[in-house]
Amino acid sequence: MATDPQQACFEAGIKFGSLYHQFAGTPVSPDSTRSLETAMAEAIENQPFCESVDVDISDSLVAEAIDHENGYTELTGNLMTVEMRIEYEGVTARTRMEMEDGYPLMKLISVDE
Amino acid sequence: MATDPQQACFEAGIKFGSLYHQFAGTPVSPDSTRSLETAMAEAIENQPFCESVDVDISDSLVAEAIDHENGYTELTGNLMTVEMRIEYEGVTARTRMEMEDGYPLMKLISVDE
Amino acid sequence: MATDPQQACFEAGIKFGSLYHQFAGTPVSPDSTRSLETAMAEAIENQPFCESVDVDISDSLVAEAIDHENGYTELTGNLMTVEMRIEYEGVTARTRMEMEDGYPLMKLISVDE
Amino acid sequence: MATDPQQACFEAGIKFGSLYHQFAGTPVSPDSTRSLETAMAEAIENQPFCESVDVDISDSLVAEAIDHENGYTELTGNLMTVEMRIEYEGVTARTRMEMEDGYPLMKLISVDE
Repeated sequence: MATDPQQACFEAGIKFGSLYHQFAGTPVSPDSTRSLETAMAEAIENQPFCESVDVDISDSLVAEAIDHENGYTELTGNLMTVEMRIEYEGVTARTRMEMEDGYPLMKLISVDE
Repeated sequence: MATDPQQACFEAGIKFGSLYHQFAGTPVSPDSTRSLETAMAEAIENQPFCESVDVDISDSLVAEAIDHENGYTELTGNLMTVEMRIEYEGVTARTRMEMEDGYPLMKLISVDE
Repeated sequence: MATDPQQACFEAGIKFGSLYHQFAGTPVSPDSTRSLETAMAEAIENQPFCESVDVDISDSLVAEAIDHENGYTELTGNLMTVEMRIEYEGVTARTRMEMEDGYPLMKLISVDE
Repeated sequence: MATDPQQACFEAGIKFGSLYHQFAGTPVSPDSTRSLETAMAEAIENQPFCESVDVDISDSLVAEAIDHENGYTELTGNLMTVEMRIEYEGVTARTRMEMEDGYPLMKLISVDE
């Protein structure tokens, strides 16, 4: 059987994979970053044990990624940072996705009973 | 070679398929319908020739679809209506997704030169 | 800092959320269940620490879910069972998604050091 | 009212948008390109009026896109070409997605009555 902290970490991972693969590929421009951040956070906060989600899509990185003709790019892990807090049976798991050595990495920051 | 009206219809179809398959499966509850509607519309409006997108997710249908324990459901075509206007080289194509005989149907409403 | 077993559980959750939200909504019929199962398993096995993924989409449940006119349905958690094995620094985490009380549930089956 | 050729083009667009936004973001490596190509084609061929779908994911472009540490990349339009044939009320629409000026472009190749 898994312990409560292990279960909290499993739930934290589910939320991260869900957020990334639901929304990666979404057309995005500097005009639509705020609405996408809000929708991503509120969507994943619906999931069980997910107390808070904070999504920060970089307007300047989005602008850089846009081809002059198209006017938009597709959302990838390179363009955002994400923080989440999971609460499971009194255990708090904190996670973050951020760039490391040029690649987006999903990290377990802390697990507190 | 395709005509301008045919090309307008092709572009209209692309936007509909994109919107549906990007966002179907998103966790949704009555608390997150407004933010999801806005993000969906603004995301697809980024695409070329897409002048306007209107997404209406039904709070009451979402509430009905929610299991008492989970507190959320996943977005499907049964829960929303969508209208779009595409402008391509002077041609306006209007499309709508709505329920028909119990199934969501993507329809080409009008093509005007 | 997270322990190795906690990290293994986090990685296991990421894979489950990824698989589900990448592939939910895919058009599926009894003619395409085998190719979808294989692609889902091989796609997620690419991810780090993911040793094996087994996806079983039920032909009979897919057939039942299909409307007579459409000829296909969209993949949801109701139509499949999934098993995964994650290996992280000597820790093995096993997970399963299966129906419970009418809803698909992602479960951590065991965590062994 | 839309004409049959216009309706064929609309249907062709839907299939392209669906294929792209359903599968973009899927983890892929040279070991999983064949199974992903097959699953993508068979999934979209389930949709109405879609007679054939051919997906060609480039092993060499996938290999180039892979970071030495990760071992996989995410599917994007840069890594594949796609051809489709739609049949609607005696009209045949052919479409192709390929790179043009460094960007993937969905194109209507021909519409024949």
